[in-house]
Amino acid sequence: MSRLTVYGDSISGNCLKVKWLLDHLGRPYRWIETGVLDGETRTPAFLALNPAGQVPLAVLEDGRPLAQSNAILLHLAEGSALIPAGAYDRAKMLEWMFWEQYSHEPYVAVARFQVRYLGRASADLEPRLIERAHAALRRLDEAATPGPFLVGDACTLADIALVAYSRVAPEGGLDLAPYAALRAWIGRVEAALAIRD
Amino acid sequence: MSRLTVYGDSISGNCLKVKWLLDHLGRPYRWIETGVLDGETRTPAFLALNPAGQVPLAVLEDGRPLAQSNAILLHLAEGSALIPAGAYDRAKMLEWMFWEQYSHEPYVAVARFQVRYLGRASADLEPRLIERAHAALRRLDEAATPGPFLVGDACTLADIALVAYSRVAPEGGLDLAPYAALRAWIGRVEAALAIRD
Repeated sequence: MSRLTVYGDSISGNCLKVKWLLDHLGRPYRWIETGVLDGETRTPAFLALNPAGQVPLAVLEDGRPLAQSNAILLHLAEGSALIPAGAYDRAKMLEWMFWEQYSHEPYVAVARFQVRYLGRASADLEPRLIERAHAALRRLDEAATPGPFLVGDACTLADIALVAYSRVAPEGGLDLAPYAALRAWIGRVEAALAIRD
Repeated sequence: MSRLTVYGDSISGNCLKVKWLLDHLGRPYRWIETGVLDGETRTPAFLALNPAGQVPLAVLEDGRPLAQSNAILLHLAEGSALIPAGAYDRAKMLEWMFWEQYSHEPYVAVARFQVRYLGRASADLEPRLIERAHAALRRLDEAATPGPFLVGDACTLADIALVAYSRVAPEGGLDLAPYAALRAWIGRVEAALAIRD
């Protein structure tokens, strides 16, 4: 048995989700910085571990690999308070996690990536991308209004998954000023996970 | 308590996933046909049930709504043989389900939707869309090569999630001829779930 290892890129919210979770759980791990922009997820050695060529990738203590940020969260958090005990709340948490990957990340994260890491002007982003990103943020703002967290009264994996790119949305030119409930929720999740910049 | 209700559009693989699962489990439900192309997912009544404006939507026996096809599968299949007992296999199943929504559906399903339902010529699809769709199908072909199913020796929710749009990929002009292992796997999953056209 060796140490739990996470291949991740620190500029990626998907990777940081895993880091925040492990830090929160106090579980020891080794982080191997793997640069997406440097092609480090496309080397033959990395593709042998994850044929999808994506980070984060967890290599468990027994050497078996696991990909997809939200699947890694669900596996590593099993048995913790971050997964609700009730079946319906657990299902709602999963609903948010799938929604994050389908309707939030492809717009909010991609806008940030294009502006911050590819150097595009936010005014030059595709209008459809901006529109979908704001639709996602608006929906989250509504969901965050009753508070304190997305599902039930405690912080769950749904909050971890969705805070990752919501908190850095302004780096993609997406102004969070209209979303007061969303901003308050981001602050609560950051506090619960002790996220600092 | 009323009957389990599923709002779904029969042209949508995401919706059919839920139908196949319930038929397989022999669980009674009411299906309310809800046409995406007819704007039936954008009415005030539907948006009150699912603010994301998407089908499938399950309304459970106690009246509580649940969205996102893969979250619905995970909830309804709880305790069945379609979810592996082992923690690692369960995590791999989740990995495939998140990959499906992030790296497969947005290309394979979208190509089919544009060709079959919006009437675009497959030759006019965005080259990037076709390239990503084939990358997803190629990866699945490799994963299906050892067989018989994606995770372990039995059919799991990962197979249900991924067969939905893989089996109708040719309707989007995506030729499955090069993917022999994928085609054989589709046949096995269809047989396991008794899917007929």
